[in-house]
Amino acid sequence: MQHRGQEAAGIVSCDGKIFRAERHMGLVSENFTSLDVIARLKGNSAIGHNRYSTTGEPALHNVQPLFAETAAGGFAVAHNGNITNATHLRRSLRETGSIFQSTSDTEVLLHLLATSTKNSMIERFVDAVRRIEGAFALVALTDSMMIGCRDSLGIRPLVIGDFEGAFILTSETCALDIIGARYVRDVEPGELVIVSSSGIESLRPFPEASSRFCIFEYVYFSRPDSVVGHRNVYDVRKRIGAELAREAPAPADVVVPVPDSGTPAAIGYAEASALPFDLGIIRNHYVGRTFIEPSDQIRHMGVKLKHNANRHILAGKRVVLVDDSIVRGTTSLKIVEMVRDAGAAEVHMRIASPPTTDSCFYGVDTPEKSKLIASRMNVEELARYIKVDSLAYLSIDGLYRAAGEMGRDPDMPQYCDACFTGDYPTPLTDQRSSRPQPQLSFLEPSV
Amino acid sequence: MQHRGQEAAGIVSCDGKIFRAERHMGLVSENFTSLDVIARLKGNSAIGHNRYSTTGEPALHNVQPLFAETAAGGFAVAHNGNITNATHLRRSLRETGSIFQSTSDTEVLLHLLATSTKNSMIERFVDAVRRIEGAFALVALTDSMMIGCRDSLGIRPLVIGDFEGAFILTSETCALDIIGARYVRDVEPGELVIVSSSGIESLRPFPEASSRFCIFEYVYFSRPDSVVGHRNVYDVRKRIGAELAREAPAPADVVVPVPDSGTPAAIGYAEASALPFDLGIIRNHYVGRTFIEPSDQIRHMGVKLKHNANRHILAGKRVVLVDDSIVRGTTSLKIVEMVRDAGAAEVHMRIASPPTTDSCFYGVDTPEKSKLIASRMNVEELARYIKVDSLAYLSIDGLYRAAGEMGRDPDMPQYCDACFTGDYPTPLTDQRSSRPQPQLSFLEPSV
Amino acid sequence: MQHRGQEAAGIVSCDGKIFRAERHMGLVSENFTSLDVIARLKGNSAIGHNRYSTTGEPALHNVQPLFAETAAGGFAVAHNGNITNATHLRRSLRETGSIFQSTSDTEVLLHLLATSTKNSMIERFVDAVRRIEGAFALVALTDSMMIGCRDSLGIRPLVIGDFEGAFILTSETCALDIIGARYVRDVEPGELVIVSSSGIESLRPFPEASSRFCIFEYVYFSRPDSVVGHRNVYDVRKRIGAELAREAPAPADVVVPVPDSGTPAAIGYAEASALPFDLGIIRNHYVGRTFIEPSDQIRHMGVKLKHNANRHILAGKRVVLVDDSIVRGTTSLKIVEMVRDAGAAEVHMRIASPPTTDSCFYGVDTPEKSKLIASRMNVEELARYIKVDSLAYLSIDGLYRAAGEMGRDPDMPQYCDACFTGDYPTPLTDQRSSRPQPQLSFLEPSV
Amino acid sequence: MQHRGQEAAGIVSCDGKIFRAERHMGLVSENFTSLDVIARLKGNSAIGHNRYSTTGEPALHNVQPLFAETAAGGFAVAHNGNITNATHLRRSLRETGSIFQSTSDTEVLLHLLATSTKNSMIERFVDAVRRIEGAFALVALTDSMMIGCRDSLGIRPLVIGDFEGAFILTSETCALDIIGARYVRDVEPGELVIVSSSGIESLRPFPEASSRFCIFEYVYFSRPDSVVGHRNVYDVRKRIGAELAREAPAPADVVVPVPDSGTPAAIGYAEASALPFDLGIIRNHYVGRTFIEPSDQIRHMGVKLKHNANRHILAGKRVVLVDDSIVRGTTSLKIVEMVRDAGAAEVHMRIASPPTTDSCFYGVDTPEKSKLIASRMNVEELARYIKVDSLAYLSIDGLYRAAGEMGRDPDMPQYCDACFTGDYPTPLTDQRSSRPQPQLSFLEPSV
Repeated sequence: MQHRGQEAAGIVSCDGKIFRAERHMGLVSENFTSLDVIARLKGNSAIGHNRYSTTGEPALHNVQPLFAETAAGGFAVAHNGNITNATHLRRSLRETGSIFQSTSDTEVLLHLLATSTKNSMIERFVDAVRRIEGAFALVALTDSMMIGCRDSLGIRPLVIGDFEGAFILTSETCALDIIGARYVRDVEPGELVIVSSSGIESLRPFPEASSRFCIFEYVYFSRPDSVVGHRNVYDVRKRIGAELAREAPAPADVVVPVPDSGTPAAIGYAEASALPFDLGIIRNHYVGRTFIEPSDQIRHMGVKLKHNANRHILAGKRVVLVDDSIVRGTTSLKIVEMVRDAGAAEVHMRIASPPTTDSCFYGVDTPEKSKLIASRMNVEELARYIKVDSLAYLSIDGLYRAAGEMGRDPDMPQYCDACFTGDYPTPLTDQRSSRPQPQLSFLEPSV
Repeated sequence: MQHRGQEAAGIVSCDGKIFRAERHMGLVSENFTSLDVIARLKGNSAIGHNRYSTTGEPALHNVQPLFAETAAGGFAVAHNGNITNATHLRRSLRETGSIFQSTSDTEVLLHLLATSTKNSMIERFVDAVRRIEGAFALVALTDSMMIGCRDSLGIRPLVIGDFEGAFILTSETCALDIIGARYVRDVEPGELVIVSSSGIESLRPFPEASSRFCIFEYVYFSRPDSVVGHRNVYDVRKRIGAELAREAPAPADVVVPVPDSGTPAAIGYAEASALPFDLGIIRNHYVGRTFIEPSDQIRHMGVKLKHNANRHILAGKRVVLVDDSIVRGTTSLKIVEMVRDAGAAEVHMRIASPPTTDSCFYGVDTPEKSKLIASRMNVEELARYIKVDSLAYLSIDGLYRAAGEMGRDPDMPQYCDACFTGDYPTPLTDQRSSRPQPQLSFLEPSV
Repeated sequence: MQHRGQEAAGIVSCDGKIFRAERHMGLVSENFTSLDVIARLKGNSAIGHNRYSTTGEPALHNVQPLFAETAAGGFAVAHNGNITNATHLRRSLRETGSIFQSTSDTEVLLHLLATSTKNSMIERFVDAVRRIEGAFALVALTDSMMIGCRDSLGIRPLVIGDFEGAFILTSETCALDIIGARYVRDVEPGELVIVSSSGIESLRPFPEASSRFCIFEYVYFSRPDSVVGHRNVYDVRKRIGAELAREAPAPADVVVPVPDSGTPAAIGYAEASALPFDLGIIRNHYVGRTFIEPSDQIRHMGVKLKHNANRHILAGKRVVLVDDSIVRGTTSLKIVEMVRDAGAAEVHMRIASPPTTDSCFYGVDTPEKSKLIASRMNVEELARYIKVDSLAYLSIDGLYRAAGEMGRDPDMPQYCDACFTGDYPTPLTDQRSSRPQPQLSFLEPSV
Repeated sequence: MQHRGQEAAGIVSCDGKIFRAERHMGLVSENFTSLDVIARLKGNSAIGHNRYSTTGEPALHNVQPLFAETAAGGFAVAHNGNITNATHLRRSLRETGSIFQSTSDTEVLLHLLATSTKNSMIERFVDAVRRIEGAFALVALTDSMMIGCRDSLGIRPLVIGDFEGAFILTSETCALDIIGARYVRDVEPGELVIVSSSGIESLRPFPEASSRFCIFEYVYFSRPDSVVGHRNVYDVRKRIGAELAREAPAPADVVVPVPDSGTPAAIGYAEASALPFDLGIIRNHYVGRTFIEPSDQIRHMGVKLKHNANRHILAGKRVVLVDDSIVRGTTSLKIVEMVRDAGAAEVHMRIASPPTTDSCFYGVDTPEKSKLIASRMNVEELARYIKVDSLAYLSIDGLYRAAGEMGRDPDMPQYCDACFTGDYPTPLTDQRSSRPQPQLSFLEPSV
């Protein structure tokens, strides 16, 4: 699951008594290939996490899984998503004496569980997850069980696999393929599963709700070879390209993706419009994924190194350029300039999603609304700004069609599409608070 | 204060708002001489700590000062001593939901303070220190003050200095000399001092009690150039040597110290008995101090490298060998063998303290009673065991005389001498509990 | 140029007097992004190198550029290629007292230059390069000039760029694009260029020879966006795919590349055969490039993590699988198995080059001949071995046609194609020696 | 031998075929206690070195033992002393093509040996050592023997030991004591010993010469428990103190050493003058030895941390302060000021050697003559400068008497005393050259 977060990685194992942790800044391959590290992680069950920072600075104490020794025993947890009332909860927990050791939103869960008046670990866990709001696909580890849990809308994915009789919980099915495990089923929205020596058990701790799976997982976040929300990601992306070709055809000689995230949609576009598909932009994989590099400066430098135009393909051509989304607009501006410098006669930009007008508070690190260029410019303005001959986005209904629906149901949308519509499916308690975010008063360098 | 602990060191600074920490395994000179490190420690007040582990394994999360963000603000603390009801308090705090992040006894203080129902930081601090038992000389840092506090018996030292108008709290006066600061006075037993922009203020949060300063500070722990408990350490040690010469003279040609801790007593012994003093054993300072190296294996290897006999001085001589104490007996056994191998005709061992028969629970890392050789052997047996021609310890009254008293007052001893008498001046709550010590269930390698 | 070597990287700068070096194991991005490192590399000229080990173990002393202080001044050199008489030269240099500090073949050049009886640096350099055999594209740095030189056959690429008046020497043109520099021309086979404050100068130190540029640069080694040997690599690869479709059509539903090196050829194949193109195998870019990872064990583990089949695309389909080459056969075996496990009805493997039957001694780390599966099996045997329904390689003439020729001229081949034909264009002095390779007698761990 | 050099340490082992090296900046205890490091040093013979830099900057490539692969086999060497014609030899070796990899004077020996026209390793070694001038006690390792060699004057020490049948070569006897080895004899001045499987063999490659052992070894450099030059160092130092008391008595209450190097002389002085001996200055062993810290800035900071006055001993007393030597005068100035600030009534400085007026070019890192305060001031001026009530040095004859002679033989001095007399017993070829020292043109950070 490295593609879901490259800032840091951690594993906590348990041998039935002792929990052991390895938590490191950087990639899994940089930190978890040593036999020593693996040997230290004794035990027969373990959970892991790749960090992609949306809250909390990049520091070792924020690397998950987090762990707490509680009156009900040891408890480790890894969290995909974002708790939207974490600041609020943190404030009240601090009032009653809880000491926070990280700036991660996930730590509130530990303190809710530790201070719960319930006896058993599971009751405490249910107590805790009922008090948190937002998006959460959680895996947790105790000395006798592994727990999986998705919020009642199922915003983030979590699937169950089976490897030679051992249960696996993971965000995406591709992790199962890689190790030769069998996909069993999704953890359902609002479901809590308990894996123990007596097998797997299912609880429903939350009130019923309609599923609102994150549609941006199809556009960008998930790996193309995964099946999430019961659909193959590559297939949805190709269908997005085909919808886009129907909605916004272009008089062109060649379809060129902005690699790698725009590639499947570009293949779909080319196929549907019967235009040639070519790799007119070469991606250098020795630099990270732009969208999820944490610092602005690195993002800035990264673009130049990351993509290079293939002059031979582009010179004199009318080019359809397919990208997954436009966030700040800076990347598109540079890419278009690069394609023009390489001699393209015309540039027709096609975006494989609707305009990104609103921030995500559910685990995707979009910048604040004011920095989202589509919240400030309409399509014509933006086309002029990034200097293309034409610009078109996929419609929201087109996106829903690609994802297998007839279109968006405005009364009860089938997906979470808040980044495109501003329609947030949960309360945003921390956002609506007029009080300032608590400032971190303690700094320690990451070792 | 490096001689008081070499395992790890830490500093927390505060600029009135933000607390910054640097905590590292190893010596101060290995970690705190880089300009970068010092530059990161912004602010106008700071506290530091050298760790010498008596509780908690050697790991980064146990390195002090510890820090907590509480409802009353940020709070950092460094502790010299040992809390003898820490396990008991830890258990109850965990019951009510406190999450411990270290195995240090000191962390209970943070949770007591965080969960205190008092409003102000000082009231919370008083609340907390009233609940802890044992030996504690504490320095703490908040965003507006520095706090110093000694337990009501004043077991561990803490002095106040003044450097060009800035107050300093430190264990021993030699730290003041080194930087050219002026000694002001001791923090008194049971006193709490608050240093802030309005000067220094004194509180008395504990019931009155007679002082019981640790007499082992004179025998071994403090630096000879310090004044602690109102007495110069080197002077007390020389007087110990003189008392020992009177109590246990020896027919000998030369007085030889086991360096460095036995040296002042040997000088005192030689002077009082009019025998020549010579460095018959050379100490290699490129290996650490035996007594406080944490691992047994290193202690084992260390002895051989640390001391070497000077054959030229010892051959054919009747030697008085002066050492500060005998703990396990293994060091003495090797030293005597080495002195004999170097050709000494007779070896008369003189110990600058009474037999070490009992463990210290107040901050000196003596092993458990069963490993203290003097708890298992009388002087004659021990003399045979370490193969000396004669062996004598200083009497307890002799030790008190060297420390300026007429002798030990058995009804109300003037010092804590538990390691020599088993007379512990505080309840030993955790020791008396029949319940097992809580086992650590979480392991993470020190980075 | 990171794609040309990931084992280690180095830069040597010169400020006209002092040479400064930074040499590190690992990627450029891991070692050369710190401002400190860049600040230490003072000066107005510099050369760099990415190491991809073909000779010499992975150790810091083998990381280039290498440096020597000679009687004619300081001299740093970075080498792309392989010296095929290095062992022979090393032996004679050692006889006369030269002390080698690395196991790199490139170090002989330093000693030849240092022991040359010529006076000027350039004369010594010419003296030295005339004595070495094999493939070499060299860049060198002295206190007053930068030198570029290609062997007389021009086996490895080297191009000249211009960035705002400053000359650049680099293996491939994409490096010029990335920084916005202008391509000037290739350093010609057998040419030596001198860049100094008085501009650029050209020498011809070698006897005339027909060019034999490495054809494998087009198949695999160069980046698709580069122009090397006067041809765009992506374009040659697409033409390879088209040639392959003509030579070896397949009754199939979809063309799927083994990413990333097979992708352009697969696009060409799909286009020429009017079949759909799809990403049926997803490449994980968080693990390195199989072909150039130095250790066998890592190569073994890497395959599983690196490629995953996209079941949704493959299930029930007749698949044309396009890869650039088959080396040991192990990768193909696994890929085919994976594609079959994903449900492919038929697998038709098409290879974008002729069978790799012979080792490269000119800078590509192919294993010895006995480990090249195509040297042991014919196409039918190999098809059975990797379990495909059909297998076809591109013909050698087809490859030459894709590279712009009418076909291979058997009397005077236009390219070096030794890995496909065994026709080595230079003497292989070290290979033909019956004496054993000198064993390294000194080991020091890389820091 | 850590006391002879703390900058860096290295070991080279040989198993009869392969040489293995570990070379690290810092102390032995910081780098050579890991089992991994020891395990990597396979073999049945090894040589090691502690570096104390007198030539060459502190960098990993200067850390000894140095190694060369030569036509006669592998050769590793470690050197105690200084080659006084190294610059001269380096220049000529470079002219004929030798490439230097370090700035160490010792590297010339490798190149002389590598370029020797002799056949056998021993003949080459003799060839090489006959061409070098200065002070050298060498140990070398080949695949079949260990070599020890002292220059014809025997300026630096080298002794032979025996540990259960295995021969040991080491600078000082204390190394033998520490591991329980037996002292066999000194390698004699001008002797070359060869240790191999057939035992030990002795050669005399140099013309006869009278021995000139470094008298400063007794004053400061050697450990007090060693026997070097056939005399016990502690004993010579005590006799120095006694001579000093006779030559320069003082009306005083207490004799106080500047620890640790002044301590034996102070004991001797106190005994001879029947004055009390006390540790009036406490040395902090957590900072290094002033004299041999390489950088001036560290030396400056070090003094303050290293010594602290014990006010209780000094206040109101007339103090005899005994130090081994005065180099720049800065340390003495601070120590005297500190002793006065502690309340001493009078300070009588006594120096355990004659005035240090000249630089050492034989392996002791004295600064250049112009920085030696005794070369610029006479005793009266210096007494005023360091603000003592009286100052006296030991006479040169007194020093020789303490070392067992009747006095210095001016026609044929029994020791090298150049630092006190300017009488250098070897030519100083590099010093006398009017040409500038070759500047290093290559910089690489130490990893």
